[in-house]
This record gives sequence, C-alpha cells and structure tokens, in this order.
Amino acid sequence: MRVVDLIQKKKEGHPHTKEEINFLVENYTKGGIEDYQMSAWLMAVCFKGLNEEETAYMTESFVNSGDVLDFSSISPNIADKHSTGGVGDKVTLVLIPILAQLGVYTAKLSGRGLGFTGGTIDKLESIPNFRCELTNEEFYNQIKNIKVAISSQSPNLTPADGKIYALRDVTATVDNKSLICASVVSKKIASGATSIVLDVKYGSGAFLKTPLEAKELADLMIKTGKLLNRNIDVVISSMEQPLGKSVGNSLEVIEAIEFLKGFYAPDLYEITQELAIKTLINCKKANSYDEAKKMIDEVIENKTALNKFREIIIAQGGNPDVINDYSLFKIGKNIFEIKAQKEGYISKLDALDVAFAAKLLGAGRDKKSDKINFGAGVLLDKKVGGFVKKDETIMKLYYDDVSEEKLNDAINIANKSVEIVTSKVNAPKLIYK
Amino acid sequence: MRVVDLIQKKKEGHPHTKEEINFLVENYTKGGIEDYQMSAWLMAVCFKGLNEEETAYMTESFVNSGDVLDFSSISPNIADKHSTGGVGDKVTLVLIPILAQLGVYTAKLSGRGLGFTGGTIDKLESIPNFRCELTNEEFYNQIKNIKVAISSQSPNLTPADGKIYALRDVTATVDNKSLICASVVSKKIASGATSIVLDVKYGSGAFLKTPLEAKELADLMIKTGKLLNRNIDVVISSMEQPLGKSVGNSLEVIEAIEFLKGFYAPDLYEITQELAIKTLINCKKANSYDEAKKMIDEVIENKTALNKFREIIIAQGGNPDVINDYSLFKIGKNIFEIKAQKEGYISKLDALDVAFAAKLLGAGRDKKSDKINFGAGVLLDKKVGGFVKKDETIMKLYYDDVSEEKLNDAINIANKSVEIVTSKVNAPKLIYK
Repeated sequence: MRVVDLIQKKKEGHPHTKEEINFLVENYTKGGIEDYQMSAWLMAVCFKGLNEEETAYMTESFVNSGDVLDFSSISPNIADKHSTGGVGDKVTLVLIPILAQLGVYTAKLSGRGLGFTGGTIDKLESIPNFRCELTNEEFYNQIKNIKVAISSQSPNLTPADGKIYALRDVTATVDNKSLICASVVSKKIASGATSIVLDVKYGSGAFLKTPLEAKELADLMIKTGKLLNRNIDVVISSMEQPLGKSVGNSLEVIEAIEFLKGFYAPDLYEITQELAIKTLINCKKANSYDEAKKMIDEVIENKTALNKFREIIIAQGGNPDVINDYSLFKIGKNIFEIKAQKEGYISKLDALDVAFAAKLLGAGRDKKSDKINFGAGVLLDKKVGGFVKKDETIMKLYYDDVSEEKLNDAINIANKSVEIVTSKVNAPKLIYK
Repeated sequence: MRVVDLIQKKKEGHPHTKEEINFLVENYTKGGIEDYQMSAWLMAVCFKGLNEEETAYMTESFVNSGDVLDFSSISPNIADKHSTGGVGDKVTLVLIPILAQLGVYTAKLSGRGLGFTGGTIDKLESIPNFRCELTNEEFYNQIKNIKVAISSQSPNLTPADGKIYALRDVTATVDNKSLICASVVSKKIASGATSIVLDVKYGSGAFLKTPLEAKELADLMIKTGKLLNRNIDVVISSMEQPLGKSVGNSLEVIEAIEFLKGFYAPDLYEITQELAIKTLINCKKANSYDEAKKMIDEVIENKTALNKFREIIIAQGGNPDVINDYSLFKIGKNIFEIKAQKEGYISKLDALDVAFAAKLLGAGRDKKSDKINFGAGVLLDKKVGGFVKKDETIMKLYYDDVSEEKLNDAINIANKSVEIVTSKVNAPKLIYK
C-alpha cells in the first residue's frame, strides 16, 4: 500500500477500506507516514469526505491507537457527556453531580481550553487546590467510591487523534464532520463510556454555524456509535448567545454552585435537564422523560446534588468551603459595566463577541503555555429578549491587570455584541432537536 | 500573514494576492513554511484552482527563486521547446539541429526521465561520451558558437519549483494545470528563453487524458506567457500511440539520426514540422507557414541539419561516428517479436502499455538512483491504421539481462497494447490544434 495512492484515491472521491484507514492511522501515529502526506490526505478528506463506514473505521483506529479504560467491573453502564464547545458552557459542572447522585457512574475526561475561554478542567482548577491530574488508579477508585471523577486527559488515550488533531489545527483541516466525529467519539469510547450524550452546538459561538451542520454531525455521531456498539444520544442546541449568565472560569463555577442551590438561568437549566434525562433513560435509571425530570428536580431541591459536588471537590483535593464562601474564588478586582445605549429589547448578545471580550480580559489562552486568569470574565445581567432602559447595565466585565489597549478592545467588542430593538423580542429557542 | 489562514483562504476558493503567493513560495523555499502546510495548500489548490493572475504570480515567484540565465548579448530571440511528456517523443533531438541550422538560437535545459522512459538527457547520453552536465559558461559559449546547447538542469534554476515539485510528487498533487503551468513556464523563462513553443500532449501515454484538458493547460500557458512578457506558442497533440517508431534511449537516437537523413515516420515529421514552423515565425526567421516549411525540408534534404547534429555531438564530447555506425550504440542483445494474433487493421497501440513494457525491459527508472539500460526498448514495425497478416511482427522488444518474470510481464503488456479489427482503420489525427 502506497500512501500517495491512498491520497489520490481520496482526492478522486473513492471510499477507503478498513485496512486502508488502519494503515493510514497506524503508520502516521508510528511515524511511518510523513506529516506532509497526512495533511494532503486530510485536505482531500475535507473536500471529498468520509462515508459512515470510513468514519467508524477511523474512530475505531483512533481508539485502538492507545489505552482503553474499562470500568465494566464497576458498572455495565458508564456515562459520559461531551459538548462540541460553547461560550459560558458550564453544563458538565452541574450535570455530573446530578447524575452521580442519581446513581449514574460517570468517567469524565476533559481537556483544558484553547481559544476563547477555559475548558472544564480550567474551570474546576479555579477552585483552590482542586486536582485534575488523576492517575488511572485514582480515577478508577474515585468512580468506584463516589460514582464520578473528572480528570484531564491521559496522554495514552487516542494518541493517533492527538497527533492528527495537532496537524489539522495548523493545516486548516479542522472543519470536517467525519474528522470531528472520529476525534470526539474515539475519546469517549477510549475513556470507557458505554452511554454517551453529546451536546452539538451551532451558532455564532460554536464552530458549526447552522442547525443543519449540527444535525449532520449529530447524525454521523449517532451512526458511528451504532457501528461501534455504543449508545450515543445527541442534543442539538443553539450557541448564539452565551449559555447562562457567566463567561469565565471562577464566575462559571459560582454559577454552577448557584444552580445546584436552585438558582438557575432558564437556558442552562433547559439544556442540563435534557442531557440528564437522556442519560438517565439510557442508563436505565429512569423509565420515562417525566420520571427522569422529577428525579432531577428532586436532587436539586433537596441539595443532595450540591452535596455530591462537595464530595467531588473533597475527593479531588479542592477546598469545599468555596460552596458557601465565594470570596475564596479569585475574582477580577476591577469591573467595567457595559450599558444600554438606548431603551428597548435585546435582540442579540453575540456569543463569539462576548467570548472574545472575556479572552482579552484574560479568561482564555492562545497557546498551551499561556496562563489563564481564573478571575477574569463577563457576567450577563441581561439575555436576548430582555428589556433594558437607556444606561441600564447589560453586562459586567471582570478583570485584573490588563493593558489599556486590551481593555479598550474588550469594551468595544462587548458593546458591539449587543443589539437593541424597539419591538418585543422573544427569548430564542435553545434546543433544536 | 499566517500560513494556516492562507490555506483556509484557498480552501474556501478565494484568490490570493501577489504578496500572498510570494510569501508562500519564498518562505517555503527558505524552509520557513513546513512541508505539511504546503502540501495542504497544494491539495486545496487541486480542488479550488488558481486563476490566471495567481498562476502568473506563482510562475514569476518560481523564476525569482533562483538564477535567471540571460543570452540577450547573443541574440534578442532565444528559443526553447518543451513537451509535457510522451512515449517515443524524440522531437527535441531532431528539432534542435534543424532550428540551429536555420539560425535560431536555442538554449535547451532538460531533465532526466522518471517513470516509463528516459528523458532527452538520458537519450543523448546513450551516445558514447556525450556530456550533458555543462557549466553555465560552457552552455553559454556553445550557444554563442554553434547556436545550440543542451544541458541537464542547473540546480540553481527555479529551486522553489524543484522543492515544490518533489512535494507534489509524493502528495498526489501533481495534476493541477496551474501548478503544471507554473512549473513548466518558470523553467523556460529562467533558462533565458524569450520564444517558447510547447507540445502539450493528451491521451493514454500522456498525463492529460483528453484534448479538452490539454487545451485548458495550453491556454493557461499562453496567458501566463502574455502576463510575463514571453512569447509562448502551443501545439496540442495526441499521445494514444507512441510517437514515431521507437521507444527506448539508443533506439530513439537512431530514429532521430534516420530522420535527419530523410527517413522519417509521418507522425514524427508532422509534429516536428509544426513546432519548427511556429518557432521560425516567432523568431522572425520566416514570414509565413509555407516559407518556414520549405526551409525545414531543405535542411533535412541537404543534410545540413544532420551535420548540425554532428556538431552538437562533437561540442558536447560525444562520438560523432555514431551517425554512420549504429553499432557504436548499446542495443539490447535479445529480441522478442510481438506478432499479430489475427489478420486485420491495427486499431490501437496503447502508448502507456508500450511504455510500461519498455520500462520493464530496462528503458526507464523508478528512482533517480536507478540505472537505465540504454539498449532496452521497443521498435514498432506497425502503427495504428496499419494492416497485418496473422503472425506478422507488430513490434520488437529489445533487452539484455532481464528476469524471466519481468520479460513475461513486458510481453503480456505489449500483447495487451495491441487491438486488431477487421474493418479498415485510418491513421489517427495527431495534432489537435
């Protein structure tokens, strides 16, 4: 098998066999295929695509390239949840304690964020002393003991995807749905999940721009799950405005704690509920939508989910006092208020703009080596559909030591993110399907 | 400027500016852009193309990446001819002495062949002691003295193209007309030519398969010449069957000598004449098609073109006695005759199959380091349109020490190359435009 012939084959739009996909993935991972050949093949894939079978072969090949975690001795149903990435998305922080409290075992491996805001791991690390780098043994034991653990990704899971993703990132070959699907699904399978629920986002703040693109990716992920004997369910949701009320690491953890205390933004509740219901039914903890919904509301109301979050913090070395004392979090010392320039209804609160502003204030990183300021971020007083008077505060920017230039850029972008109209605007539909 | 953004731009089908093309070519040549980014960009170009301006920018950038030869102190009109490559194509060998004898200065840089058969340089090196590695000074002086010289390419001409071509070769990104155009035209311009005539071939033995593809490439080359102030003329010709009667290095040089003695295959004469006429008119040595034609026939008939070929051989250290004594050439000791399996008219003599057979016998190379057997090759007794009786010889395979397996493969492929039908077949049209 010659690599150049496989590149030509894909360039001409022909499907690869399982052996060909394995040959490409295995040899690239081992260094037997050069970067320049893989990148040419990836670009051909961006133009000609991979069909469902090829996507499943690729996913499986990624899984087989490294360690595969196995929790079957703990439970036959191991849940995992993944979001394709959004602004203000702190769903994992609230979903996991709810599910664990309801008896669902969850093995959550997550990454640090690159781009506008931190990832789940970054958010949790804003809790003083919280440890995310668990060994495989610590991870396993914690799941056994308290049903849930969250860890930054082990370098031995799906190394093929890791190497290929790094190449995609610098060769403009990220945005292909088969490559995205293989990357996401392989990680979930390798981390031992049998029941996977995915939140596929579209809109300004997501990298898929339309519901149709999100639907295509979702369908492909579900089919890939079927072909590889995993239960994959999908929620498609809008990411036109930030999710919930906060963007930034400490701010989002505080919002998650408030949620578990029963004070939540409707959109954050809606998506969390949807993902939790699907998981409870898939893991056979509930028989119906209504039953699952009731169970979820109960563990929020009686604070047992909040208590489970405390258990997680304690298990991973964090200071649980943050739950009752938010001053233990690092929060930006300075606040700049973005105010309404006229009276009316907010018709737009652009997620990408808000994220960009948060990043300029220090909430995100460009390179792995960049330091995040956990205290930086944006707090939204209003959401789309809300009414504002002239000069009323729409959002607050939190920051510490930021150059005047960056601060001014952040203020301008935050102002630009807002549109106000005179006629009434309804709150937008969050869940597409 | 970020390379990944330029890849994305081309992937989305947007045209590059001159600065962007220069940035890509210059930095890649210097090592500032990685192979894997360039190959992704090249693949995007294969799908989205380069427009005429981008193609001219790329051509110019290739030219500027290395030395540019200048013969303007010898003559304002320096001719060059290039063929996109065909089977049995020994046109350069006969065209150059004819043009030089008629007063046209020709600076001919040529390459060794990779693939099925040798390049012009390989063919000439089958003349004992013929030297093709001329220094720039030797090249210049020989052109000044006898109007023509032929040399293997200097490594300092268009190094950008050299580096990019090597990458294209292993990433299945060869077959894009803009990339081909830039590669071919830049070499001709850098080698000092002002008047360039190109033989763009299509068909089984060419890498462009249809006249339409050849026409598109030809048009683009003409336009690129215009944008860069060079006179480029094109002949589009068929390469369904081998050109002339021989395929292989010594065999083709002998055919060229026979041609200059007045004994030629009609197709080889037709294409040579067409290319010579265009060059004579472009270089202002003839005023009309008919005048040019008469001049060409005259130097063949009075043997002065043959004598010019002798001059070239002497100037470049070769043994001129080969002209009258073909036994000085290395010719395969063994001959296998491919015979007609039935009576009828030859409707097909597949150029690619014949070339493949010749290569199996030793006439071509796979890698630069492979040794060519100058004496190996195929001699055609018949061409398409010819009538054969059962068991009459169609072609002869010449070879020396070849494994039985390779010989059998060559025989099978040679047999497969032939199709015979009962109804009369006309000789195919050679020149498309």
